Amino acid sequence: MIKKGDDIGRLIVECVKDQGDDVRDSDVIVVAQKIVSKSEGRVVDLKDVVPSFFAREVARRTRRNARHVEVILRETSRIVRMQKSHIITQTRHGFICANAGVDRSNVSGRSHVVLLPEDPDESATAIRTSIFQLSKRDVAVIVSDTFGRPWRLGYVNVAIGVAGMNPLKDYRGTKDLFDRTLTVTMIAVADELASAAELVMNKADGTPVAIIRGYSHPGGNGSAKDLIRPQELDMFS
Amino acid sequence: MIKKGDDIGRLIVECVKDQGDDVRDSDVIVVAQKIVSKSEGRVVDLKDVVPSFFAREVARRTRRNARHVEVILRETSRIVRMQKSHIITQTRHGFICANAGVDRSNVSGRSHVVLLPEDPDESATAIRTSIFQLSKRDVAVIVSDTFGRPWRLGYVNVAIGVAGMNPLKDYRGTKDLFDRTLTVTMIAVADELASAAELVMNKADGTPVAIIRGYSHPGGNGSAKDLIRPQELDMFS
Repeated sequence: MIKKGDDIGRLIVECVKDQGDDVRDSDVIVVAQKIVSKSEGRVVDLKDVVPSFFAREVARRTRRNARHVEVILRETSRIVRMQKSHIITQTRHGFICANAGVDRSNVSGRSHVVLLPEDPDESATAIRTSIFQLSKRDVAVIVSDTFGRPWRLGYVNVAIGVAGMNPLKDYRGTKDLFDRTLTVTMIAVADELASAAELVMNKADGTPVAIIRGYSHPGGNGSAKDLIRPQELDMFS
Repeated sequence: MIKKGDDIGRLIVECVKDQGDDVRDSDVIVVAQKIVSKSEGRVVDLKDVVPSFFAREVARRTRRNARHVEVILRETSRIVRMQKSHIITQTRHGFICANAGVDRSNVSGRSHVVLLPEDPDESATAIRTSIFQLSKRDVAVIVSDTFGRPWRLGYVNVAIGVAGMNPLKDYRGTKDLFDRTLTVTMIAVADELASAAELVMNKADGTPVAIIRGYSHPGGNGSAKDLIRPQELDMFS
C-alpha cells in the first residue's frame, strides 16, 4: 500500500533483498504507474473538484460523472474521439489513451481517482537514481500502464516512462538473412518489456513491480516520449 | 531456412531436443509468421503477378510497385488508409496492418514476397498437433507478426494465430485491491506473450521460435480472431 512520499526505488531494493536476491546491472525494472502516481500524490478526491461548464457538457454527452470528466480534461491536451461513454484523449505528455489515463481502480476511497505521473520519465529517472544510490547497480526503469488499442481487443501494458535505456531498438541499415535492408526498422522494445512484465504483474494481483533479467537492452538514455508518433506522421488521430 | 512442406512442429521438437531439453506441458511456443508462411508455400514471385487496373492506380498514387500492390490487394478485405506510400488495410482474416501483412524481408529472391498464412489459427493448431503427436506434450502455440500501431512509434510483436489457449485474460467481475470492480477487464495476453518473445527472437537474428515457460496461460482453446475488435466497437477504422 503505497502512500505519498514513499521512495519506490528504496522499496524495490528492500523487497528484492527480502527475497534473498539483489538488483543487478542491466536489470530492467518495470513499475506499475499506479504506485508511482500514488507515491507522487497524484490522487484527487472527486469531492474537491468543481467541474467546468465544458466538463459538465462532456459528462452529459458521455453520461459520465462530471467531476471525473473535469479531472480527465485537466490532464488532456486534445480530445481525439468521443463516442458513447468513451473519451479518448491525448494527455499532457502526448500519449493517446482513454480518459487521459485517469483511473479509478486500485485506489482506496470510492471518490478518489489516480492521475498519471506529471512526468513519467522523471519518475523513472528518480527510481533509477534511488536504486543506484542504494545498490550501486545501473538498472533501466520502465513506468508502465495498460492501454487499449484501436482495432484489437484487450489492453496491453506499455511504457509511459523510461530511464537508463532507449525505448526503441533501431534496425535501420541492418540487413536481413538474405542481405536485404530490413523494412521493419524500429521495434518498441520498452513496450514489449512492459507487456512481458504484465504477464507476471497481473492487474488485480497487487504485484506492481517486475524485474526482467538477462535481456540485453539497447542502452542509451532515452525517453518514453521517443515512443510518441508525431501527429503529422499519424494517420489515425 | 524453411521451405514449403516443412513440418514446423517437428522441427521445434527436434531443435529443443538438440538443445538438451524437451517441450513441456503448458509451454507457450511463439512462432514467427515468416517461417509458417514459408512452410505453407505462401510465397509469391512478383514476376508472375499481373496487376489489375485498380492495383496500378493504387501503385501510382502511392509510388509503389504495381505487382506488389496487386498481391497486397488480393490479401485485403478493406483499405483503411492510404497516405504517401503507406497502405493500411484490413486483411482477409480481419487484422488491420500495413500492406495486408505482405512482406519482402527475410525471403530469398529479390522478386519474392511473403503473405500471411491463409488461416494462422489453423497454422497454430497444426503446429500444436504435430508437437503433441511427437512429444505427447500439451503446449499452446502463438503465430506472431510485428505490426505498427497508431499513435506510437516502433513495431511490436502481436499474435495473429493462437491454439491451445485463450488470447484474452478476462478480469470481468474480479475486484481490485479495494474490492471495487476493475475497469480494465480484458488483457490481451497472447499479444503480450508475442511481444515478450520478440525480445529474444530479434527481427534480424533468424531466431524464429521462442518458448515461454512457467507462464500460467488462461487455458481454453481460443482464436486470434478473438483479438479483432469488431468494426462497430472501433473508433479508428
